[in-house]
Amino acid sequence: MKFSCKKAGEFMYSLAKKLFPINRSITGPGALKTLNIIKSHLNSLEIKKIKSGEKVFDWVIPKEWTIKKAHIIDPNGNKILDFDNNNLHVVGYSTPVNMEISLEKLQKHLHSIPAQPQAIPYVTSYYKENWGFCMTHNQRSKLKKGKYKILIDSKIENGHLNYGELILKGKKKEEVFLSSYICHPSMANNELSGPILLCALALWLEAQKEREYTYRIIFIPETIGSIAYLSKNLKQMKKKIIAGFNLTCVGDNRNYSMIHSRLNDTLADKVLLHCLKHYAKNFKEFSFLKRGSDERQYCSPGVDLPVVVFCRTKFGEYEEYHTSLDNLDLISKEGFEGSFNIMCKVLESIEINKKYINLILCEPQLGKRGLYPSVSKKDIYNELFIQSNLLAYSDGRSLLEISEIIGVSILEIKETVLQLEKAGLIKKI
Amino acid sequence: MKFSCKKAGEFMYSLAKKLFPINRSITGPGALKTLNIIKSHLNSLEIKKIKSGEKVFDWVIPKEWTIKKAHIIDPNGNKILDFDNNNLHVVGYSTPVNMEISLEKLQKHLHSIPAQPQAIPYVTSYYKENWGFCMTHNQRSKLKKGKYKILIDSKIENGHLNYGELILKGKKKEEVFLSSYICHPSMANNELSGPILLCALALWLEAQKEREYTYRIIFIPETIGSIAYLSKNLKQMKKKIIAGFNLTCVGDNRNYSMIHSRLNDTLADKVLLHCLKHYAKNFKEFSFLKRGSDERQYCSPGVDLPVVVFCRTKFGEYEEYHTSLDNLDLISKEGFEGSFNIMCKVLESIEINKKYINLILCEPQLGKRGLYPSVSKKDIYNELFIQSNLLAYSDGRSLLEISEIIGVSILEIKETVLQLEKAGLIKKI
Amino acid sequence: MKFSCKKAGEFMYSLAKKLFPINRSITGPGALKTLNIIKSHLNSLEIKKIKSGEKVFDWVIPKEWTIKKAHIIDPNGNKILDFDNNNLHVVGYSTPVNMEISLEKLQKHLHSIPAQPQAIPYVTSYYKENWGFCMTHNQRSKLKKGKYKILIDSKIENGHLNYGELILKGKKKEEVFLSSYICHPSMANNELSGPILLCALALWLEAQKEREYTYRIIFIPETIGSIAYLSKNLKQMKKKIIAGFNLTCVGDNRNYSMIHSRLNDTLADKVLLHCLKHYAKNFKEFSFLKRGSDERQYCSPGVDLPVVVFCRTKFGEYEEYHTSLDNLDLISKEGFEGSFNIMCKVLESIEINKKYINLILCEPQLGKRGLYPSVSKKDIYNELFIQSNLLAYSDGRSLLEISEIIGVSILEIKETVLQLEKAGLIKKI
Repeated sequence: MKFSCKKAGEFMYSLAKKLFPINRSITGPGALKTLNIIKSHLNSLEIKKIKSGEKVFDWVIPKEWTIKKAHIIDPNGNKILDFDNNNLHVVGYSTPVNMEISLEKLQKHLHSIPAQPQAIPYVTSYYKENWGFCMTHNQRSKLKKGKYKILIDSKIENGHLNYGELILKGKKKEEVFLSSYICHPSMANNELSGPILLCALALWLEAQKEREYTYRIIFIPETIGSIAYLSKNLKQMKKKIIAGFNLTCVGDNRNYSMIHSRLNDTLADKVLLHCLKHYAKNFKEFSFLKRGSDERQYCSPGVDLPVVVFCRTKFGEYEEYHTSLDNLDLISKEGFEGSFNIMCKVLESIEINKKYINLILCEPQLGKRGLYPSVSKKDIYNELFIQSNLLAYSDGRSLLEISEIIGVSILEIKETVLQLEKAGLIKKI
Repeated sequence: MKFSCKKAGEFMYSLAKKLFPINRSITGPGALKTLNIIKSHLNSLEIKKIKSGEKVFDWVIPKEWTIKKAHIIDPNGNKILDFDNNNLHVVGYSTPVNMEISLEKLQKHLHSIPAQPQAIPYVTSYYKENWGFCMTHNQRSKLKKGKYKILIDSKIENGHLNYGELILKGKKKEEVFLSSYICHPSMANNELSGPILLCALALWLEAQKEREYTYRIIFIPETIGSIAYLSKNLKQMKKKIIAGFNLTCVGDNRNYSMIHSRLNDTLADKVLLHCLKHYAKNFKEFSFLKRGSDERQYCSPGVDLPVVVFCRTKFGEYEEYHTSLDNLDLISKEGFEGSFNIMCKVLESIEINKKYINLILCEPQLGKRGLYPSVSKKDIYNELFIQSNLLAYSDGRSLLEISEIIGVSILEIKETVLQLEKAGLIKKI
Repeated sequence: MKFSCKKAGEFMYSLAKKLFPINRSITGPGALKTLNIIKSHLNSLEIKKIKSGEKVFDWVIPKEWTIKKAHIIDPNGNKILDFDNNNLHVVGYSTPVNMEISLEKLQKHLHSIPAQPQAIPYVTSYYKENWGFCMTHNQRSKLKKGKYKILIDSKIENGHLNYGELILKGKKKEEVFLSSYICHPSMANNELSGPILLCALALWLEAQKEREYTYRIIFIPETIGSIAYLSKNLKQMKKKIIAGFNLTCVGDNRNYSMIHSRLNDTLADKVLLHCLKHYAKNFKEFSFLKRGSDERQYCSPGVDLPVVVFCRTKFGEYEEYHTSLDNLDLISKEGFEGSFNIMCKVLESIEINKKYINLILCEPQLGKRGLYPSVSKKDIYNELFIQSNLLAYSDGRSLLEISEIIGVSILEIKETVLQLEKAGLIKKI
């Protein structure tokens, strides 16, 4: 079943609507359900698991967290907060609790944002036992003194951390790496948009007739997931990966952003920047000092994978970030489509980015080979410009480097490269 | 007979007047006649020839083109266009034609420029058999319907391509390379000015008491000429040439220009830029993307000679370019002189650009050697500045590099270099 | 006896008042007296001497100059100039003279500054036998025709050049080098301030519990002193010195300045620039082209020590420079304190500037090690920022390089480095 690029936006937004209500965390049934829904589109996705307690580098896989229900009942007997309404209402990894408690004591377990009184904040406590509720500051301000009945019906038990891995073989063993994370509860841009874009890109890659490179695609919980994955695959990854992209916050329709790798010098930095310069109207470049997601692991010293981050508005740079305001209204079909288009161009660019040498000393006689373009005057000029400069700079450097020299995108010069290669004027090295 | 620099401008402009009327092309009697006139000034110039049909890299030496006369007679019997009046009237390499033809059909063989209605365009068709006439757009607009008698009395036959080569031996086998082209009919700046400046520079070089470097000077037809010359001399040229200059459009008196080499990193790039910065009031730097003359061959990958282009207003950057408006009024004695002066400084700079080392640890005692300058206060400061910095930076780097560091032209530091060398404080390495 | 940083400014200004009146020159009793007063604070200072006539590189140690008195008596018998009032009144190294002389002839031996009519200029003639008087231009303008009785009671005889050297051993044999000069008569900023700051820094260094590096501290006459010192110690200095600072003009309270080393690429360039960027409100960077003091020798080719100059307002950049206006009013306790503080930070920065590697793959779990900061929110952010970036960039580079990447001063990250090192997350290499 062929993937339709034209419907990519629609596909992604509808998948977002489906996945949005699920209560995800770094472990537990929500993440697994999410992976299974993605697998329903990507049959070859392998869902893997790692046991709680397993050591992964400096970390230990945590116990699995399951939550059935949670609520607060006020002194008047009204249920004023219910986990069923919004899974952000409970601090992630809350331990079970079932008691009557004074407002004063309860306050120590409440979270809200005074500056955004209508937003429920997103709070977690993975590695320190704790429990808590999150609510809007408006609601919190109105709480009256008295005894509250509170319930968190959760379990923290030995279990597994789940993640998805899809390897799409290409002609070469060298790999392009794509990563996103599936551990956030009901927030749309950060982070449902990442795994959803990744799903669409995987479908698009599967649909290609041939792939130059092998693609390593992973859906993991953030931080612990990337650390665990690296602890199992680092050697192979260091050997094979030529460029990698962490996808996050890619569903809104504002500007684009990229976060550079630690040393800002990898193929991934260059290709993404190249495509943003040529195809994005507005974009922002961030240095590695502004990192915050799994690039923290992928680029750490000793790991040093050539990975950059691709976003629309970067995490932490928009006010809805990590609150209930990051909902399905914040993302859109158009937002997804823009991200999809840029990333397709990025991957295409990597696929064609070979090194070429000129086979003929001095300029070739183009006329006798019928290589003079014969369209409108302006296009002739442009095509001759590309042609002559491809010949002039094919001295063993890559097409991306040539593109940067001549100021034309690598995808725009692709046809001319094929033409010159066919005519025996240049060849790949 | 010693060449007088003071009269260089006059000499060049009068040579331009003499050469201007000749109908040059890439082959044929006009180019040869031009070479012979140049040889009348430069006795050691060798005029060489290559047979039509000979393969030179990807190209073949074309047949020789000779044209005796050409005209158009209008339906009223008036000769409205005559090759004798302006050799731009006929498309270069026009095949012979002698016929009556309707205006409608004739139009397909006419060339004019609507935006420059008083200019006759310069058009050629070297490698595709064709014929045509060029006229002002004003004239073309007035042509009336009817039968026209047209004549082009030309021949395209096996023959030769001619070029001139002059090797001026120096103390070293390493060469400085100078090139210009002699294939354009009656246009003054592009391109009579180039070979004329080259002739004057050759006379100036011949007149020098001694030359550090050997000079390779060639007068060739553009493109096919440089390709042919390279095909015969590439190995030697790659081995010997340390800097080269293609001279073109050097007779007008507007700004100066340079086109950098392909990778913008050769001695020629550095020296020409240095001299323009110090001696030209206005100049423009162009990247290799703006190339258009024989540098296309000299800098092509695999050839990679250290060649840049020296111009006043660059080809393609002035409105008279490639039209009959590029005539003797566009160039001047002053324009030539300016170009001559810059190029002399460029060549002098290369001649003296040695690497030096300081022979004394710490600053030397200048007083005991009588090396303190004894002129006006301002000059003392300047001379001490040069002296102390020459000593400070003579650590094996070249004078050009030192000049760039201290912001003084290499020719200005020359005397001080000789003084310090004589005093045993620095020496060449 | 512990040195008190708090009283450093007071100590320095009071030492300046004591040293100011002494008539110093490159040799003679004034320089020696100055060294002895400094030694009264720095017991381990060794006062060394070199004989007149000894060859040091291209120079010869000059004879020793002693002057007892000097004056001018005008035609009316009034003593209008007396060396006892200001030692700038006599040209340094004046030969003895005792005669009656016409004003006309005397004029050739008088020095004044028309543009600064109230300033006595500072003039010397070390290497050319001569004599002369310096006075304000106001005074000179009023001199009347007639016979003047003039006396310079001086001697130029074989003797010694004196200098002071202090080696403070550290854990390593590698050295930090500090130099200043003690050859200027009564001028305050240039140059009493340099040796005085150097004395305070030496006291501060002596008072440190431990020193990572060995400190080589010298008090020398300018030019001939540094050349002589280098001629005796160059081999050792080239082997051991990792960074050096020439201190001059450090007592005024205007901006700060630095002069870069010859190639602008040494540790000294980097550390001083780093500290000025972080701790000086205003500072100016000068290239080596603006040099003028002993850095001329320290950085000369073949010597090539990693030395930069530290100043407040640089010599030659303030109007009082080299005149009697450079007096005790120009310098201040505050000016000295500012210089002392910057230089202490520079030396501390060098002491802690080690290279580190991260010992753990991926980010470490900070929580389980209690490494999450627990102060105010803003500080938490800042401390986490430093912590995570120290970990991210500890890939073998130095703390100074890391500081530059993250934009935080090296001294600010020191505590966090120690913490991470103690926790076994990073280690020195």
